[in-house]
Amino acid sequence: MRIPAPLERVIGALARLPGIGEKTATRMAFTILRESHSYATEFSEALAALHTVIRHCSICHSISESEVCAICTDPNRERDTVCVVEGIPDLMAIEQTGEFRGLYHVLHGTLSPVQGIGPDDLTIASLVKRLQQGHVTEVVLATNVDVEGDATALYVGRLLARIEGVTVTRIATGVPLGGDLEYLDRGTLANALRGRRQV
Amino acid sequence: MRIPAPLERVIGALARLPGIGEKTATRMAFTILRESHSYATEFSEALAALHTVIRHCSICHSISESEVCAICTDPNRERDTVCVVEGIPDLMAIEQTGEFRGLYHVLHGTLSPVQGIGPDDLTIASLVKRLQQGHVTEVVLATNVDVEGDATALYVGRLLARIEGVTVTRIATGVPLGGDLEYLDRGTLANALRGRRQV
Repeated sequence: MRIPAPLERVIGALARLPGIGEKTATRMAFTILRESHSYATEFSEALAALHTVIRHCSICHSISESEVCAICTDPNRERDTVCVVEGIPDLMAIEQTGEFRGLYHVLHGTLSPVQGIGPDDLTIASLVKRLQQGHVTEVVLATNVDVEGDATALYVGRLLARIEGVTVTRIATGVPLGGDLEYLDRGTLANALRGRRQV
Repeated sequence: MRIPAPLERVIGALARLPGIGEKTATRMAFTILRESHSYATEFSEALAALHTVIRHCSICHSISESEVCAICTDPNRERDTVCVVEGIPDLMAIEQTGEFRGLYHVLHGTLSPVQGIGPDDLTIASLVKRLQQGHVTEVVLATNVDVEGDATALYVGRLLARIEGVTVTRIATGVPLGGDLEYLDRGTLANALRGRRQV
């Protein structure tokens, strides 16, 4: 049976999403076909608007509907602290904690020699330029705690150490909430011991 | 952080798909945002075309780009056998076996008193009308082998038994290929024993 072209194209587009194979994409496409016409139309319009309406903030490179994003223009945010993250989902996760009131800087990736991603592919130069203006006193490196994230934090940290008046910090590593020491990986436990603090 | 409206709408639309939660939908939406503009545009156009280009075949109710689908108009298909399936993915699965050369009839669901789906919500009346024209000699009931599928097959089978000249059959149930008797559920094994055939 020949699948009609638009259905084939929807399946192909869905199959490019992370974690979606051909079979799941087909099931999803049939769900969309079974759903109301208005759902597909709304979905289609939102997708079309995605790249035209959303752009990157010229300061922090987060997503924004205007030249500068809502966080960078918010007068209530602390302007002396900048949190460096790999991507926008990380920024959103940190925002949800309600723990951080400073500004952000989105790198849009991590250094990865294997994938050919070097410092020039990230927004590192823009971060350095931003810090050289002198309003920022602390940079929190909040890249993921994995090989690429740690390497990127190390690289950025060393680069920023040269800028006067800026303290560079790294988010803490250790036992997560609800963590059972018996079942934790050795690396996490070793990090927790190394990072122990006086109570 | 306020998520831009089109992104929010894309996340909402993705989250309505089967097996996709809010978190996965968000990850997918960011993937689309990171991908090229042309990908989102192509995806959007395919979605918009879905309901306008694809309609249901007036004979078998499968999907089609014209009034009557490619299978129903194919002169090489055996016109005396009709295979009744729940949905189009089932039809596609049967087509992929290459085992069936007849025509199809898509019910678009199963009887489900719990969900308020009765015979009038399926294409049963259309099937009866189709068979009364007298060209069909065998109807293969290929609904899923589960409670709803079996109940629907039973209902349709009884209804069609009244039509003269039509033999009603049900797909075989038993041990699947590679099935290990030791680990099979009792129901499947019982079905395999009940349906045993002389070799």
